[in-house]
Amino acid sequence: MSIHAPEVANRIQLDERELPQRWYNIQADLPFPGSPPLHPATKQPVGPQDLAPLFPMELIKQEVSQERYIDIPQPIQEALRLWRPTPLMRATRLERELKTTARIYYKYEGGSPAGSHKPNTAVAQAFYNKAEGTKRLTTETGAGQWGSALAFATKIFELECMVYMVRISFEQKPYRKSMMRVWGAEVVPSPSDRTQAGKRIRAENPDSTGSLGIAISEAIEDAAGREDTKYSLGSVLNHVLMHQTIIGEEALVQMERAGAMPDVVVGCVGGGSNFSGLAFPFLRDRLGGRSKTRFLAVEPAASPSITRGKYAYDFGDTIGMTPLLKMHTLGHAFVPDGIHAGGLRYHGMAPLVSGLADHGFIEAVAYPQRTVFDAAVQFARTEGTIPAPETAHAIRAVIDEAVKARERGESPTILFNFSGHGLLDLAAYDAYFDGTLSDVTLSEARIQELVGSL
Amino acid sequence: MSIHAPEVANRIQLDERELPQRWYNIQADLPFPGSPPLHPATKQPVGPQDLAPLFPMELIKQEVSQERYIDIPQPIQEALRLWRPTPLMRATRLERELKTTARIYYKYEGGSPAGSHKPNTAVAQAFYNKAEGTKRLTTETGAGQWGSALAFATKIFELECMVYMVRISFEQKPYRKSMMRVWGAEVVPSPSDRTQAGKRIRAENPDSTGSLGIAISEAIEDAAGREDTKYSLGSVLNHVLMHQTIIGEEALVQMERAGAMPDVVVGCVGGGSNFSGLAFPFLRDRLGGRSKTRFLAVEPAASPSITRGKYAYDFGDTIGMTPLLKMHTLGHAFVPDGIHAGGLRYHGMAPLVSGLADHGFIEAVAYPQRTVFDAAVQFARTEGTIPAPETAHAIRAVIDEAVKARERGESPTILFNFSGHGLLDLAAYDAYFDGTLSDVTLSEARIQELVGSL
Repeated sequence: MSIHAPEVANRIQLDERELPQRWYNIQADLPFPGSPPLHPATKQPVGPQDLAPLFPMELIKQEVSQERYIDIPQPIQEALRLWRPTPLMRATRLERELKTTARIYYKYEGGSPAGSHKPNTAVAQAFYNKAEGTKRLTTETGAGQWGSALAFATKIFELECMVYMVRISFEQKPYRKSMMRVWGAEVVPSPSDRTQAGKRIRAENPDSTGSLGIAISEAIEDAAGREDTKYSLGSVLNHVLMHQTIIGEEALVQMERAGAMPDVVVGCVGGGSNFSGLAFPFLRDRLGGRSKTRFLAVEPAASPSITRGKYAYDFGDTIGMTPLLKMHTLGHAFVPDGIHAGGLRYHGMAPLVSGLADHGFIEAVAYPQRTVFDAAVQFARTEGTIPAPETAHAIRAVIDEAVKARERGESPTILFNFSGHGLLDLAAYDAYFDGTLSDVTLSEARIQELVGSL
Repeated sequence: MSIHAPEVANRIQLDERELPQRWYNIQADLPFPGSPPLHPATKQPVGPQDLAPLFPMELIKQEVSQERYIDIPQPIQEALRLWRPTPLMRATRLERELKTTARIYYKYEGGSPAGSHKPNTAVAQAFYNKAEGTKRLTTETGAGQWGSALAFATKIFELECMVYMVRISFEQKPYRKSMMRVWGAEVVPSPSDRTQAGKRIRAENPDSTGSLGIAISEAIEDAAGREDTKYSLGSVLNHVLMHQTIIGEEALVQMERAGAMPDVVVGCVGGGSNFSGLAFPFLRDRLGGRSKTRFLAVEPAASPSITRGKYAYDFGDTIGMTPLLKMHTLGHAFVPDGIHAGGLRYHGMAPLVSGLADHGFIEAVAYPQRTVFDAAVQFARTEGTIPAPETAHAIRAVIDEAVKARERGESPTILFNFSGHGLLDLAAYDAYFDGTLSDVTLSEARIQELVGSL
């Protein structure tokens, strides 16, 4: 039994009065010009009026704002205090297990009602919609993390909520659907018969199991067609990433209190929001030349958009209804294979993350899922908490960094985002233990085919 | 939209250095003599040596200690810091929804790795066993909250863990079994073929779906038969309740900081441990004549041991292997119907809670499960977090108290224990919404029959 009294605090908790009062907008500090979204028909930069049918004006302003900081309205702060500030943990037990010379910290975002970081932006989006008179929000969801977060947030701010859930998840993962029901949202499997997009896809392929791109098409069509309804997206867009910076602003204070600033910041990436939420406030110092912190984005080998995709203009959805975004993409028609980290199954990457990666500020690495679950189980058996499969991608990279540090005799401080717990993903752990989990890796030939067509 | 800036803090978070350093042992302050456990064969008070095959000596000492405070060893504190101190929340949104004049606070115990208060004692029991050379622990579990907590704790302290899980839960609720697997425990359905008790019951009734009492019999037989193995119980016993007082000790500091001491303290009761954990430190002042706080234990109408059971000596298990405990009981042969609050399905009640109730210090109330789920959904739709069905019993009583306060024009402060989240109980919520949830209430005739035979 190797139990020692902790030499340092292994849990750093902020007081509720220390909740950050403003978000950090990294657009103000980019050392390169941004690439504006283009209208899908005209290929010209979109203006606020193009986006007005889908988003409230305040969010449209945030999307293009050059202000470094944006105040968080009081009602949003009050909602965030239901679970924030979140703890910063030092993974002392994992460090011992790895016999590493590295120090490992993680920001724990699994304590929100929906169990992930997603509510950080969901409550903000629900608030601004409510304030501008929206009655109803539509969205898409894959495994259900984002849908459940928005269901929670719309209930808090008294809006109706309509969730288009990727059909295969709707059928195979009933419990996040149950959560949405508890919070009063309507959930339908996508492709559905509620939209032209859904009907068209079902006519072409009655057995379609759906995809995130298809569900986005449906949610957008629904919102565009009703005066009282707007659309909400859980990642990718600038304002969404900005709402997540509350994670990193808290973590900065906590790391200072721990007396340890990170040498490397790690997060998993699907659309990019949890990674950005932790990383951007630390990137502020790197962009300003005040730190040499590394930033490591971790993606699944089944959907390796940064590591293997092309940096190009592409649609955010399958049908081609969204503006064109400059991003790392595997092509909007690409439907990633059914890995358990449903939140990482996206063909593209947030334009801000893509731009920063393209300019060398963000590194990326991709892992197949069995080695990711090895890391997940190692973490659960040392630190206790069972991570979501998405989060486990970050943990895989952190363990590899920590082992490298030991081998090199270095003592870096590693900080990662524990984006969500895995209590609604236990079937995936069963598959892992039963040996039925396959390593889904996008083949070289398929990558060439996908990227070549862009 | 009725969103106001909070007038008071709605989240009170202690620093990790404020983790309580000692447990409160209410046995030191009881104004009435305790009733000792009796040997099942001799009916004489059991001595330490009678219990030594099942428990490490330090826990046996704690079971009968008259010391008011017992220091929490550093390794246990370190394990507890993985999720403690836990937040105290003010339920301002629920208060508004109820238009109540009451102030409602809750202590949030759902943030532990296993999602409930159970790990508070699990890590303590695992530590003391490890320290005294135990290699392996056995236990029983119903829906799996306790089994998963012990699986987590034994992994932290490097012990093997064997869980006898009530067969119907083993088959119908796969995910807590998956959690135990993640933490490396062995889980078998009970009745099993691993023990004489299990074999006998299966011989009599091959289709037995099991019960908590049967699973206890199996776990005890397993532990008693192996030198390297001891047994661990998740509730009922004095030392278990004492380990949970860390909840109330934290809450006392937090309520002082909020400037509001509770007029009534509420918790759900199955064996009694989460209720006692919150209540006992506040009862210290009541027993000392320094407060008039009320204490309200909430039980299911399907298993109403305090409200309808007899205060008598009875066995803790079904077969009759445990010492006889003086407690409120419906008879050790009673198997409660299959309500969703699996953690409250127990025929007896902790002797300490029973004695305090018998002497008028604790009140009790029983609810059928549909009204309990009404309360659960109302809570989730205002405060966000989805409660476990067990916890929802406490919430039902809190809402009723808050509505009474409004009707009477009173402004009491209500504090309850949010013992666990409901993310592994979402099927029960589906049943509630589908209208298939039945109100299971023990009939008057059946109660007379059960109690008459004691």
